[in-house]
Amino acid sequence: MEKSRIQDAIKKLSALKCHGLYLSDFLLTWEKTDDELAAVFAVAEILRDMRRTNISARIFDSGLAVSIFRDNSTRTRFSFASASNLLGLALQDLDEGKSQIAHGETVRETATMISFMAEVIGIRDDMYIGKGNAYMREVSRAVQEAHAAGILEQRPTLVNLQCDIDHPTQAMADAMHLLQHFGGAKSLRGKKLAMSWAYSPSYGKPLSVPQGVIGLMTRFGMNVVLAHPPGYEVMKQTLDVAKENASKSGGSFQVTNDMRQAFAGADVVYPKSWASYAAMERRTDLYGRGDMAGIKELEKELLAQNATHKDWECTEKLMQETKSSRGLYLHCLPADISGVSCKEGEVEASVFDRYRDPLYREASYKPYVIAAMIFLSKVQQPAKMLERLVTAAKPRTS
Amino acid sequence: MEKSRIQDAIKKLSALKCHGLYLSDFLLTWEKTDDELAAVFAVAEILRDMRRTNISARIFDSGLAVSIFRDNSTRTRFSFASASNLLGLALQDLDEGKSQIAHGETVRETATMISFMAEVIGIRDDMYIGKGNAYMREVSRAVQEAHAAGILEQRPTLVNLQCDIDHPTQAMADAMHLLQHFGGAKSLRGKKLAMSWAYSPSYGKPLSVPQGVIGLMTRFGMNVVLAHPPGYEVMKQTLDVAKENASKSGGSFQVTNDMRQAFAGADVVYPKSWASYAAMERRTDLYGRGDMAGIKELEKELLAQNATHKDWECTEKLMQETKSSRGLYLHCLPADISGVSCKEGEVEASVFDRYRDPLYREASYKPYVIAAMIFLSKVQQPAKMLERLVTAAKPRTS
Amino acid sequence: MEKSRIQDAIKKLSALKCHGLYLSDFLLTWEKTDDELAAVFAVAEILRDMRRTNISARIFDSGLAVSIFRDNSTRTRFSFASASNLLGLALQDLDEGKSQIAHGETVRETATMISFMAEVIGIRDDMYIGKGNAYMREVSRAVQEAHAAGILEQRPTLVNLQCDIDHPTQAMADAMHLLQHFGGAKSLRGKKLAMSWAYSPSYGKPLSVPQGVIGLMTRFGMNVVLAHPPGYEVMKQTLDVAKENASKSGGSFQVTNDMRQAFAGADVVYPKSWASYAAMERRTDLYGRGDMAGIKELEKELLAQNATHKDWECTEKLMQETKSSRGLYLHCLPADISGVSCKEGEVEASVFDRYRDPLYREASYKPYVIAAMIFLSKVQQPAKMLERLVTAAKPRTS
Repeated sequence: MEKSRIQDAIKKLSALKCHGLYLSDFLLTWEKTDDELAAVFAVAEILRDMRRTNISARIFDSGLAVSIFRDNSTRTRFSFASASNLLGLALQDLDEGKSQIAHGETVRETATMISFMAEVIGIRDDMYIGKGNAYMREVSRAVQEAHAAGILEQRPTLVNLQCDIDHPTQAMADAMHLLQHFGGAKSLRGKKLAMSWAYSPSYGKPLSVPQGVIGLMTRFGMNVVLAHPPGYEVMKQTLDVAKENASKSGGSFQVTNDMRQAFAGADVVYPKSWASYAAMERRTDLYGRGDMAGIKELEKELLAQNATHKDWECTEKLMQETKSSRGLYLHCLPADISGVSCKEGEVEASVFDRYRDPLYREASYKPYVIAAMIFLSKVQQPAKMLERLVTAAKPRTS
Repeated sequence: MEKSRIQDAIKKLSALKCHGLYLSDFLLTWEKTDDELAAVFAVAEILRDMRRTNISARIFDSGLAVSIFRDNSTRTRFSFASASNLLGLALQDLDEGKSQIAHGETVRETATMISFMAEVIGIRDDMYIGKGNAYMREVSRAVQEAHAAGILEQRPTLVNLQCDIDHPTQAMADAMHLLQHFGGAKSLRGKKLAMSWAYSPSYGKPLSVPQGVIGLMTRFGMNVVLAHPPGYEVMKQTLDVAKENASKSGGSFQVTNDMRQAFAGADVVYPKSWASYAAMERRTDLYGRGDMAGIKELEKELLAQNATHKDWECTEKLMQETKSSRGLYLHCLPADISGVSCKEGEVEASVFDRYRDPLYREASYKPYVIAAMIFLSKVQQPAKMLERLVTAAKPRTS
Repeated sequence: MEKSRIQDAIKKLSALKCHGLYLSDFLLTWEKTDDELAAVFAVAEILRDMRRTNISARIFDSGLAVSIFRDNSTRTRFSFASASNLLGLALQDLDEGKSQIAHGETVRETATMISFMAEVIGIRDDMYIGKGNAYMREVSRAVQEAHAAGILEQRPTLVNLQCDIDHPTQAMADAMHLLQHFGGAKSLRGKKLAMSWAYSPSYGKPLSVPQGVIGLMTRFGMNVVLAHPPGYEVMKQTLDVAKENASKSGGSFQVTNDMRQAFAGADVVYPKSWASYAAMERRTDLYGRGDMAGIKELEKELLAQNATHKDWECTEKLMQETKSSRGLYLHCLPADISGVSCKEGEVEASVFDRYRDPLYREASYKPYVIAAMIFLSKVQQPAKMLERLVTAAKPRTS
């Protein structure tokens, strides 16, 4: 039964125009066509069903998956490791410490030196506005040049594991969760999603999650509302992307400073803390000038600012405002749970508890989303290859 | 010849009732039946013979083996890496630093997040009394729940790589060494083993080795003597286990404060330093209260206490007391060798030197013991699977 | 076409006497015969061509490649990881920190404990004169003994990833670059190579690169000139090796204190900073006595000494002196590029820029050189095995 479901999914995949993904990087969801995103979802689901039915998805006999994490990460690290391993690649971490490494020549050279046998490079660099995505493009250009010059036998493709602008593997996993939960892309049309700021006692959480979510969910004809207190604005370019997406997809996009209004009638809520764009820009400036005292001062200021918005909490009462009081609660995890992981946080413990299983399921899609991104960037005829793998049906575990 | 030996061993394995190991964790040897332990030894030996005859034991085409080490470890880390690799799993380390991580929700969530493609989780957590084994059970419950909820496609099984109570991979490797040395389980009946405290200039060595040894060796009808100075008591529950085991197996278990008496006529001696249970409990309390000054004070006190027992050393003279002066010397390594790795230590250099090869052999069983534990927890019909692997005889190295 | 090129290369390989490499370590190039070095080049090239034509070179189904890096290393680490992965081995790093670990018993024991399933051990230990190579030989003896005693089922072979004396994987990659660039071993006869000191604002760069280069390039009948300011002498034993090689190969070897003279008419130049042997000996002494203040003092002194030789820079003007003004510029990377990675350095930016692609290509040979070293040490009949792999033509990536 699962096998015929896989066959159907492969058939659907073969109808999608996704050749643009071949040999290309996955840096921002809005650089990809609807068909390309649909292909990622389709392959992710097929790979999951293959694993469930014990069919090997190894397309590599050898080869490296290089990870560059410029910020601590357990979840994304394990997702990338799992995805690479599923396809037959060995993980090799480039550990440069958490400091920004020099740009320019150094990036170019290092990128080439680590890529002689690399099939994919996964990068997380989300700490400084204007830096993370730019760094990824620098690495991408470097390996492109080295490949063109015949120095690299293959061109490793890049997967953005979170930058300052987008968090595509997270947003795509979130979307896959919605697709599974509501039953396909058509069911998302007209659904209301509230991406809302929420209070956290910590500081400087990246903007890439809200930006990634509004940049992606607006493509499914959803009514997306971004809610935050004044002063917690996100990058303008991502607002523009969301607006344009909404207008194209027949959905809508609005920004509000009222959490309750955002939750009202929402099918999906995503309450999560982030730092404001303006604050992050100041931080990047201070960092650039090496002004560590200034950064400390800024941190204090931002925590004080946060503390004036403790009412931005996803409470049971607020959840009552959602569609039939049963809106789906999303989070990228880990959440700041009031009375559990902190005194006052993003979400009431009972709300989080009720949604724990769906939240963990949401997270479970990420390894498959990443594997699908790698698969589609490395395989010229993905549907045919999957067909071949399913027909061969080599057991993943004996 | 080796192949027919493998075939015989598989036949013996198929007669053992070891289905209880399937999909279960390996946390304490005394939670396992005699047949289950015999199955671990049998599979370990078969895997070793297969490797020797260049037959691949890969039962996984992909999949992760997750390691969590809350204490430095080179030997156990390499043993776990080797075992995982032999079966086809890729190692992925969860590096949380050495500090205790928060329990409760955090453990539950992290355990699930790292397990989407994990087949096995190996944990070493031996620093605090009452904590390590409890942590393992928390992780075990978490992945069990996540599997039951359909979030994890497979349930990773746990292997205890050393906790506060038991060190099953060490004790099982020690036992395998005895089985090989003396020629099988029957030959161990009536043999005397002295598990003795020995002086070390260092502080706070875990109790899991002596506890694991008395909890396991008493099952083979051996006469096990635990020797230590007053004040170096081990956990009462493990004494109870040892007593009960001895009475069931037809062996004996005694505790003495006299090292010489323990060595007298011993077939096997295992002199090794450890901290006392009471001291470790105080340390855990101090740690819980964050009293680092108190911990320093305790350390001083314990080192001073240790220093009053420098005569607890495994000397040539003492070895003369053993059976025919040729008792087998065991150690989990590294040992504190007098005049070599420290001024005064657990063992005289000439004694250690004489037993170096057997000691290294003892250690060499650990990767196979761990591989056998993983194998038996992941394979429903182990004898059939081994039969299949041996018949296929895929070369491990071309 | 590439396949027939591979077949030809295998035929040539089969004519070489390289059985001495089987089960042996690769520690110094001058311990190997000409045929053995030729075999490494041949296998490296064949493995590269196999990868290019998507033919798997996996000769291991499982097995560990252990790395021991006692100095930071991104490039060599990735080269070793790539080489191991290409052959089917999983990398396992022994992270002992950067401090010298104790010698003697500890080395012996640790070497054995990490080797139960290790096929190869790669070591980088270049910080202290008289230590690195000696450490490798200690490890080698330990695993030899443990194998002879039946403790290790296989004897892991060692690859020197840089020591105090030689840097064979670098020098061999450099040589492979020359062979490819000039068109084979015969074309190197009579070519002039200048291995020259160059100014760097940093301190204490290892001598193994110049020593390795003069120890290897003198074997091809080249005219090798070593140039450095007075006080930057290399180890005498490597000068002796270079002299003897040159006399045997029909080339020449000279030392000069004049960079321009070295560059005059040179076909190849290799300008690179290093510390003097005498200074490194003093540093090793100070380190041995734990005199950190003395080391700081020495560092100051050496930097001041360096600063008196800022004119030792590979400038455009100097490059004009080389053969037809078009000498090939080599570097092991990363280079200290004037105005780019430092204010004043080893090489003018425009020179480096012009040679960037060849430099990256030079580096690209290293993973293959390492893989060839491992291959030849683990495979008894290398030509036959390669023949078999090429005939089987298992795709590396589906």
